Amino acid sequence: MNETVAVRLSGTVRIVGAGLLGASIGHALTAKGVDVALADTSPAQLRLAVDYGAGRLAADDDRPVLVVVAVPPDVTADVVQAELARHPEAVVTDVASVKLEPYRTLRDRGVDLTRYIGSHPLAGRERGGAISARADIFIGRPWVVCRDAETRPADLALVESLALELGAMPLEMTPEEHDRAVALTSHVPQVVASLLAGRLADADDGALRLAGQGVRDTTRIAASAPELWVQILGANAAPVVEVLDALAADLAQVADALRDPDRMGARRVMAEAIRHGNEGVERLPGKHGQNRRFEQFVVMVDDTAGQLGRLFGELGELGVNVEDLRLEHSPGAQFGLAEISVAPATLRGAIEGLEARGWRIASTTND
Amino acid sequence: MNETVAVRLSGTVRIVGAGLLGASIGHALTAKGVDVALADTSPAQLRLAVDYGAGRLAADDDRPVLVVVAVPPDVTADVVQAELARHPEAVVTDVASVKLEPYRTLRDRGVDLTRYIGSHPLAGRERGGAISARADIFIGRPWVVCRDAETRPADLALVESLALELGAMPLEMTPEEHDRAVALTSHVPQVVASLLAGRLADADDGALRLAGQGVRDTTRIAASAPELWVQILGANAAPVVEVLDALAADLAQVADALRDPDRMGARRVMAEAIRHGNEGVERLPGKHGQNRRFEQFVVMVDDTAGQLGRLFGELGELGVNVEDLRLEHSPGAQFGLAEISVAPATLRGAIEGLEARGWRIASTTND
Repeated sequence: MNETVAVRLSGTVRIVGAGLLGASIGHALTAKGVDVALADTSPAQLRLAVDYGAGRLAADDDRPVLVVVAVPPDVTADVVQAELARHPEAVVTDVASVKLEPYRTLRDRGVDLTRYIGSHPLAGRERGGAISARADIFIGRPWVVCRDAETRPADLALVESLALELGAMPLEMTPEEHDRAVALTSHVPQVVASLLAGRLADADDGALRLAGQGVRDTTRIAASAPELWVQILGANAAPVVEVLDALAADLAQVADALRDPDRMGARRVMAEAIRHGNEGVERLPGKHGQNRRFEQFVVMVDDTAGQLGRLFGELGELGVNVEDLRLEHSPGAQFGLAEISVAPATLRGAIEGLEARGWRIASTTND
Repeated sequence: MNETVAVRLSGTVRIVGAGLLGASIGHALTAKGVDVALADTSPAQLRLAVDYGAGRLAADDDRPVLVVVAVPPDVTADVVQAELARHPEAVVTDVASVKLEPYRTLRDRGVDLTRYIGSHPLAGRERGGAISARADIFIGRPWVVCRDAETRPADLALVESLALELGAMPLEMTPEEHDRAVALTSHVPQVVASLLAGRLADADDGALRLAGQGVRDTTRIAASAPELWVQILGANAAPVVEVLDALAADLAQVADALRDPDRMGARRVMAEAIRHGNEGVERLPGKHGQNRRFEQFVVMVDDTAGQLGRLFGELGELGVNVEDLRLEHSPGAQFGLAEISVAPATLRGAIEGLEARGWRIASTTND
């Protein structure tokens, strides 16, 4: 497949939409010597992307082998249709974060979709725009590719090679599978985190002083931009509603149990809710796609530059590989707590070795 | 206050309940030379706590200045009542994670509560039991103390000095304030994380491959133990239900908007939900209790021991203090992404310095 890539991507790649994703793809391809032709309805955004090195201005006589449509979900179908007509030799893909709505719109219009292959790189940044674009945002991330029965193998290979060139991992799914998957793993978690964080918005300052790492983690993604999410949720409404309704039913069941916690069966409802959650969180892919379990310990770290360097340097000397790490700052205290995850076999050596070097080891906190 | 502490805690502290919290308090006080007398209804648990150095076996002629009741919420009131009767000179506190139910039970029984001061250290570990106990789990954490009109200043000082001795920060609250605060900041986030994770339990493997850091963070605390949480939720049912009902109403509103996303006002409902969440997450206390904002960047780190050490060592050389850090592992890839937060003023220097030293800087990912 890599050989195909080298041949095909040596032609021009046209990118329509020079925002974060479009410009990031442009940067990555330009860095690999591919001719990237950029187009955008906003001359200012386009100029910025070119100035930052994401590609050159598109020309009327471009003959791209591949067109990447990187525009907001609500205009994706229109732009894909226009590009299929404009470049009758090219394969056209899009990178919108919903896949069924654009596909269905195009099909309902009777557009020949032989050369269209929808895709979705699971990559992004908290800030959008050409100015935030970076070539590296795709590395190691899944990149969903939606083929259908009409798709030609060479065209599929071209889109998958785009993903591979950018360091992503192509995953084939149907548009329906993709949209249900992101509803569950991305869109509903966003809604839930936002609503939970919304409950904090009107709380007393005093109450918020008791907030620990648990609620911080649970609400972290609630910092996301409203404009973007209104589009995403609106374009994937049905699968999101399906999960939200199931979640609302679960929530009502737990709330009902708590309205009379001493009635027969109430405690069992609560226990099952927590236990079922245990099962779900265990299924999330961990490091290297596996569900390996690690042991944690917490090291107190002074709030000075270089302390973490010394800590990790010494862990390296001890031959301990840090599998995960989380820094927690105590409100009001002049030090941090570094929660370190290691393979169970290296736990004892790590703790004893660090203590021998004078580090204060606290324990895993869980509030 | 510290002088009072030294005088009063030089007497015997009796700890009833040698589980995680009781034994951890025992370890911390023993390390400071305080005489700790341990009691537990389980001879095995008690023996284990003594063997691990959390204190000595309690004796019939002990005359404690302070009794710490560290038993499950559902037996806290009974044990507090018994201890008040048994040690008529002692101040009695408890460390249960709900505060109103034990207080109300004792008051309804007509118990004289002059010498009782409920408290709650916001500390814990993912595993319970004497064997998991550590002296350091209280350091830097809030420790809520519930005084009332009858409380004598010297008794309050004694309980607050216990918190201070263990490195915690005493916070005065009423039982009602405490229970509402933990419902919002701990109990409801637990329910929400568990229910959301429960939705993942029956999902396709394929869908879960798209899971990123967002859903992992949102569901992390869903790994908590059912037994413990059934007790906590049952004992704080009313405040938890109040927040859950408000959340359910918010959820229904968003789901209704998504059932017909093109109707007038639907997009506004979605946008307001996300925007209100932005406000809430901004109110969570950050480092040193402030809401300082940091800039993030992502460094690619090989999956070998010592790489993080080199990274943080070099950041230290560059004079850059790491304010927060998060390690992300790409499914299937042999490297990790270290998301590093720094003060805005040091961002450029950090990135340029690291790039000059050969590090690959990616960008902040947000799925």
